[in-house]
Amino acid sequence: MKSRHPFQKRIQLDMTGFTAELQRLCRQPSIAAQGVGMTEMARLVDNLFRRAGAATRVLGADSGQPVIYAEFPGRSDRTLLFYNHYDVQPPEPLEEWTVPPFSAEIRDGKLFARGASDNKGDLMARLAAVQVLQKVMGELPCRVKFVVEGEEETNSQNFQRVVARSADLLKADACIWEFGGRDQSGRVEIYAGVKGCCDLELSVQTANTDLHSSLGAIVENAAWRLTWALATLKGPSEEILVPGFFDGIQPPSAGDLEAARRIAGGEEEMRRQYGLQRFLRGREGGEGQAITADLLFGPTCTICGMESGYTGAGLKTVLPKEARAKLDFRLVAGQDPRDITEKVRRHLDASGFGDVKIEVLGEDFAYRTPVDDPFVRLVEETAREAYGAEALLYPTSSGSGPMYPLGKVLHAPIVSTGIGYWGANAHAPDENIRLEDFAAGIYHICLLLERFGQAS
Amino acid sequence: MKSRHPFQKRIQLDMTGFTAELQRLCRQPSIAAQGVGMTEMARLVDNLFRRAGAATRVLGADSGQPVIYAEFPGRSDRTLLFYNHYDVQPPEPLEEWTVPPFSAEIRDGKLFARGASDNKGDLMARLAAVQVLQKVMGELPCRVKFVVEGEEETNSQNFQRVVARSADLLKADACIWEFGGRDQSGRVEIYAGVKGCCDLELSVQTANTDLHSSLGAIVENAAWRLTWALATLKGPSEEILVPGFFDGIQPPSAGDLEAARRIAGGEEEMRRQYGLQRFLRGREGGEGQAITADLLFGPTCTICGMESGYTGAGLKTVLPKEARAKLDFRLVAGQDPRDITEKVRRHLDASGFGDVKIEVLGEDFAYRTPVDDPFVRLVEETAREAYGAEALLYPTSSGSGPMYPLGKVLHAPIVSTGIGYWGANAHAPDENIRLEDFAAGIYHICLLLERFGQAS
Repeated sequence: MKSRHPFQKRIQLDMTGFTAELQRLCRQPSIAAQGVGMTEMARLVDNLFRRAGAATRVLGADSGQPVIYAEFPGRSDRTLLFYNHYDVQPPEPLEEWTVPPFSAEIRDGKLFARGASDNKGDLMARLAAVQVLQKVMGELPCRVKFVVEGEEETNSQNFQRVVARSADLLKADACIWEFGGRDQSGRVEIYAGVKGCCDLELSVQTANTDLHSSLGAIVENAAWRLTWALATLKGPSEEILVPGFFDGIQPPSAGDLEAARRIAGGEEEMRRQYGLQRFLRGREGGEGQAITADLLFGPTCTICGMESGYTGAGLKTVLPKEARAKLDFRLVAGQDPRDITEKVRRHLDASGFGDVKIEVLGEDFAYRTPVDDPFVRLVEETAREAYGAEALLYPTSSGSGPMYPLGKVLHAPIVSTGIGYWGANAHAPDENIRLEDFAAGIYHICLLLERFGQAS
Repeated sequence: MKSRHPFQKRIQLDMTGFTAELQRLCRQPSIAAQGVGMTEMARLVDNLFRRAGAATRVLGADSGQPVIYAEFPGRSDRTLLFYNHYDVQPPEPLEEWTVPPFSAEIRDGKLFARGASDNKGDLMARLAAVQVLQKVMGELPCRVKFVVEGEEETNSQNFQRVVARSADLLKADACIWEFGGRDQSGRVEIYAGVKGCCDLELSVQTANTDLHSSLGAIVENAAWRLTWALATLKGPSEEILVPGFFDGIQPPSAGDLEAARRIAGGEEEMRRQYGLQRFLRGREGGEGQAITADLLFGPTCTICGMESGYTGAGLKTVLPKEARAKLDFRLVAGQDPRDITEKVRRHLDASGFGDVKIEVLGEDFAYRTPVDDPFVRLVEETAREAYGAEALLYPTSSGSGPMYPLGKVLHAPIVSTGIGYWGANAHAPDENIRLEDFAAGIYHICLLLERFGQAS
């Protein structure tokens, strides 16, 4: 980074400190799904904000992981809200990491840790930007609020409750969402929406104990029941078979498809990087626009995990008493997650699988901000200046998050930008960020806050 | 047990010692599938035989778990061979045991341990019978050989090699197989055969790393591929769908079906004990003969275990790179396990699942001794005397074991009888034997050896 702008100079001077602070965040495990380290992590985040001069509040600690709220005063009346989360995905499978997942080791300019990219790096970049502006400008150009939750990876149930009763506190003129980053070509990706989700655990129990597999001739097998039930939900041609699943879906607009055309590219590299045989629906690496449209505008039905019986080394001739699978439906605009759960239930019942139980692990609607909103354009313009290249605007991310419950009370635009990159391995072993992206991301947020304050 | 016969008196006097010896065997873990404690266990068995006066040999230790061979001299020229195994099933799931699985704790007249029933209890009962006869009669009434392998639970590959090259050493006039026991009504079950097996591990890999589940819209999912592949093998009506699977099967004879009629009973109790909703093919508890015929004469296709992706607590929105399932086919007379493996391969290929890999974990043919063989009748008669009631003769067990490779070289009848019972939980948590069955089983073997020697 050439140090021209005063913000950039300051970032360069303080990078060692910002990086050490990020390492501290990454070395504290905070696995919401497993209840590991959450209290310690919430305290760490709260302290970090207070040391930077924020007034903080801990919200909703009574019924889930605490939500940390922080507020910094600023020159203008305008308020920008940052949404982040301090929880991380489980680090398993541990044996596939090349460094311990909470070591925050730096190697070849990359910081490796579960949560480095998703989402502690972005949280730290934004707080660093606040500190740079305080030093360079003497005060912040606008009011800044942070809301940092601890259950984003487990579907934000507590955050949704907090938002519903904290509308006044969270009031802002715009919101920056948690993530973003660069693709394989180095292009910066900005998102104006997220998909919804419907996360279900399916389970079957056929006996009160595991039995000898010789009884397979006369006794029901939970693993078979689950296999057949799953096969009714989605077929080998990758079509989702739940009746009514696609009802009400808003088809992509011409603008959406045009965005997909601009976004497309790098699919063949992705295929090679991940060792994929092929893309779904027989699409070739060259069919970038179609693949991108599938990714952004298509709902999904994914088995995230399944387990039954003996899964250790060698053979155990057991007939399993139970079987379970975790299913993740990503939903698009027009789909209602509660309606999807009901349709899955009805379909299983109608297909003879009334014995398959459903537990709802999480439900959320999709959410979008119009791509021609002035705040979307401001994020694009400042990204162009910070990164020295045109940013790519995604009408929606293929991922999800609790944007809908927040957007519903904010009545303000929400855009996502961040410091990730294509090789970040979010949710996978060896999650990492590049420190150069970290520095550039701090600069982008500095410019964004400065212009946002001026626009009043 | 009323102590009338001199054998029974001796058993009563020595029961404490026999039980302590069995506890020693059970406290030594010997999990072939996980390679735990096998060398120690083989040494323990070898020592046990030598202390009882046997000449022993360790066979086949170069290419797998050692096979322990032991020979005791006897009065007549006739030789009885005992087949047992010293390996046990893995103890998982550990949390469902009410005592540590290798504690060999005694509670309410039962000895609890992984392997207590399958198969250390029977091994010890037979060795105890040899010691009782030595004390009461001064010498054994016939020559006795033991062959005790260490890979029965992982499909006896090494045992089969040992048998093939040790035909002269193992030569015997008859063989007692490893297992047997009492059903819910207290009836003693004797078996004149075993089913074959074809144990396969199916696996699919779709990427070189686990991915974020948002990519489910465009990327193949190993868990889905495996689910669909499995669903082509067996359908919800419990019919095995592999073309040619039933070819060549010898249908049950009138005698087989008559045996099934005599055996039937207790199905409703079994259903309640295991908390089963129903029996396969909609059979009611009252349809005992049909259920028994299914169990004895029907081949199976059982999922013993399957695993993919994240299976821990809560949610992890991951798209799994790989998935695997362990499949156990139990085969009946007329089926060739290698042929079954080939048919499964061809069927998966033809169904579009060429990407599903197959690893063979074990293969064996079914084996039967004619139910009117004089040795079968001798085992029945001595069981009647030892247990004071008519024994039930099963034309075949529903389980399997390496009876075929041994029978092929012995050219002698093989019958299975043992000290288990309906509540033994073989292959399941809280495996146990009843000490009264242990004592009665020793007595049965004493009588059997005595009459077998006289029959020369």
